[in-house]
Amino acid sequence: MNSFAFHNPTRIIFGAGTLDKLGEQLAAFGTKTALLVYGGGSIKQSGLYDRVLQQLEQAGVRTVELAGIEPNPRVSTVRKGIELCRAHDVDFILAVGGGSVLDAAKAVAVGVPYEGDVWDFLIRKAQIQSALPLGTVLTLSATGSEMNGNSVITNWEENLKKSFGSIHAYPKFSILDPTLTYSVPANQTVNGIVDTMSHVFEQYFSLTTDTPLQERLCESILQTVIENGEKALAQPDNYEARANLMLCSTYALNGGMISVGMQQDWATHMIEHEVSAIYDIAHAAGLSVLFPNWMTYVHGERLDRFVQYAVRVWNIDPSGKSDEEVARAGIQATRDYFTRIGAPSRLSELNIGDDQLERMAEETVGFGPVGSFRKLQAGDVLEILRSSL
Amino acid sequence: MNSFAFHNPTRIIFGAGTLDKLGEQLAAFGTKTALLVYGGGSIKQSGLYDRVLQQLEQAGVRTVELAGIEPNPRVSTVRKGIELCRAHDVDFILAVGGGSVLDAAKAVAVGVPYEGDVWDFLIRKAQIQSALPLGTVLTLSATGSEMNGNSVITNWEENLKKSFGSIHAYPKFSILDPTLTYSVPANQTVNGIVDTMSHVFEQYFSLTTDTPLQERLCESILQTVIENGEKALAQPDNYEARANLMLCSTYALNGGMISVGMQQDWATHMIEHEVSAIYDIAHAAGLSVLFPNWMTYVHGERLDRFVQYAVRVWNIDPSGKSDEEVARAGIQATRDYFTRIGAPSRLSELNIGDDQLERMAEETVGFGPVGSFRKLQAGDVLEILRSSL
Repeated sequence: MNSFAFHNPTRIIFGAGTLDKLGEQLAAFGTKTALLVYGGGSIKQSGLYDRVLQQLEQAGVRTVELAGIEPNPRVSTVRKGIELCRAHDVDFILAVGGGSVLDAAKAVAVGVPYEGDVWDFLIRKAQIQSALPLGTVLTLSATGSEMNGNSVITNWEENLKKSFGSIHAYPKFSILDPTLTYSVPANQTVNGIVDTMSHVFEQYFSLTTDTPLQERLCESILQTVIENGEKALAQPDNYEARANLMLCSTYALNGGMISVGMQQDWATHMIEHEVSAIYDIAHAAGLSVLFPNWMTYVHGERLDRFVQYAVRVWNIDPSGKSDEEVARAGIQATRDYFTRIGAPSRLSELNIGDDQLERMAEETVGFGPVGSFRKLQAGDVLEILRSSL
Repeated sequence: MNSFAFHNPTRIIFGAGTLDKLGEQLAAFGTKTALLVYGGGSIKQSGLYDRVLQQLEQAGVRTVELAGIEPNPRVSTVRKGIELCRAHDVDFILAVGGGSVLDAAKAVAVGVPYEGDVWDFLIRKAQIQSALPLGTVLTLSATGSEMNGNSVITNWEENLKKSFGSIHAYPKFSILDPTLTYSVPANQTVNGIVDTMSHVFEQYFSLTTDTPLQERLCESILQTVIENGEKALAQPDNYEARANLMLCSTYALNGGMISVGMQQDWATHMIEHEVSAIYDIAHAAGLSVLFPNWMTYVHGERLDRFVQYAVRVWNIDPSGKSDEEVARAGIQATRDYFTRIGAPSRLSELNIGDDQLERMAEETVGFGPVGSFRKLQAGDVLEILRSSL
């Protein structure tokens, strides 16, 4: 186990009906003017928008709106939000939506007190020093953005998708009401499942040794997502299934609680970011395609971890099999599960051909080789992309 | 799963050599005068005391000392600490030690800004509104006090042992250096193991349904403690074993992270508090005796959970056994493990006879029946105590 620091100051308020606590949370921060950040019209259709406005009114909060956050949130939209905050003396950012909305809201929050352009934080030209306080109401179990300080932002002018992480960007509170996810369409529920599992993979497949608790925490989330994913797809209003997925996605990426002291990987995420920086596909669709192929490419680096994964997470019976066979059976079980829930397994299913693979591979290693489980050079990335066609 | 709120603002700084970060942490809080709280002479013998003083000096912090915190910390000692803080304008409390020292320091921290007597908080006569900031350097893996807002304090004049919990009593930071636990004697290492496992038991044996992730998180800690406990006892300076135990004890009781949305029990702790309020025994010694007998007494309330415990935590093979047999095998495995590591299994081993059992039973239910897995009346407590003789 490596040395580490862990600090997660976000308050989570979880359960059916917890939206009714939004007003008191805003009041606790002395909110006068909030920027309400949301995506498309789905929160208006579901009635959530009206319920949020009611809470804001009851708390006596003036509201300015930043609507239309994109599935891959754009820096141009973030800049618009920052201008709105400055023009209207906004003192609190309230994000209502899924990971994209939350990520955009975080970028606005850190951008307001900064004199330069917010993109500077994404390309490491400047360090985040402060932020407006941020609260969230989550409508999609997926990214963990509700309990961490991370944000992923896309710059279409430059075809770049970059991320930042900062203690200043942790939400002050997040309201997690599983009933708000009942109306999430099947394909987005699938994306959330893949996203949550992928976040665990990036932490679990690690070269760090002697981390028995962390490995089990990771496996606990994977097993619980696998069980509850299909339940939620079969019964979209199954409270327990939705609640379990929501808790899993939050715990999967809440500042690294499940993988403290472990070296993380994140190569697959970086490859996917380059794919979806060129093709406007859902992040999780890219992950679903790439992860089993990444696993196949790197599993020899640490066969024991892949054997453990197969046995503990997928209940592969190891008797009579070689370690290599057990490991491959675990990878195949992953692929099969993704297929079973309707997630893609080939880039071709996403209408992505081989014409941009070299560019994506080069861009992935733009800051140097990626990953730690196995350090990937452009050539490695290209092989993984090719095996994903 | 029940609704819940979770908020744990403590920063943990974990690893060999992290004591060297104490000075910068104190400086970050603008500390001018610290109350250094510690127990007996062990930190002086080990050299830790000198290293802490060096950090305080380097950070330019004036130091006032409250030494001699008892294994069951006394309210009289806490009152002394509060007076010291007021007399010397202390602005930060620094606890260096195990759970008892941390608990005493928390009581001092909440007592200083309160006009009445600190004991009021323990008997629920007053609510905690604020506290001096508190930091800790942990020397014993056991109570989780380093990452929660709980404190247990004894009042010998009244033979009462009571607890409080408050968001204001969470440490601002806790330095967790596993190497500081190398010198912990075997019996205290054993106590820490039992204490950690008992904390998980109080959360895991719950009537709340549909909590698959939480159950697995609890089982993850139990399995990891069981594996690493004997390793640490055999090799007191085995870094990984000490680190795993330290992380397990912290995660086992850090504001309920592993059992969010579950009704907790805590009856066994309340019974034990009455035992050790009369007999000055180690808390964990009492728990080691009581827990298997509590399990035997209540397991019928929810046989499925005890079966799951036996199979998942103790690898009991259920084939050819009734659920009752599997459950009992799991309870017996618990008892056997405690015996194997040298923890007591009978009150008589602690020189406790049957003359005070009624009084302890009555005192346990002084505020009403205890526990939630099975609500225990005085008669139930008495039976558990009798079966523990």
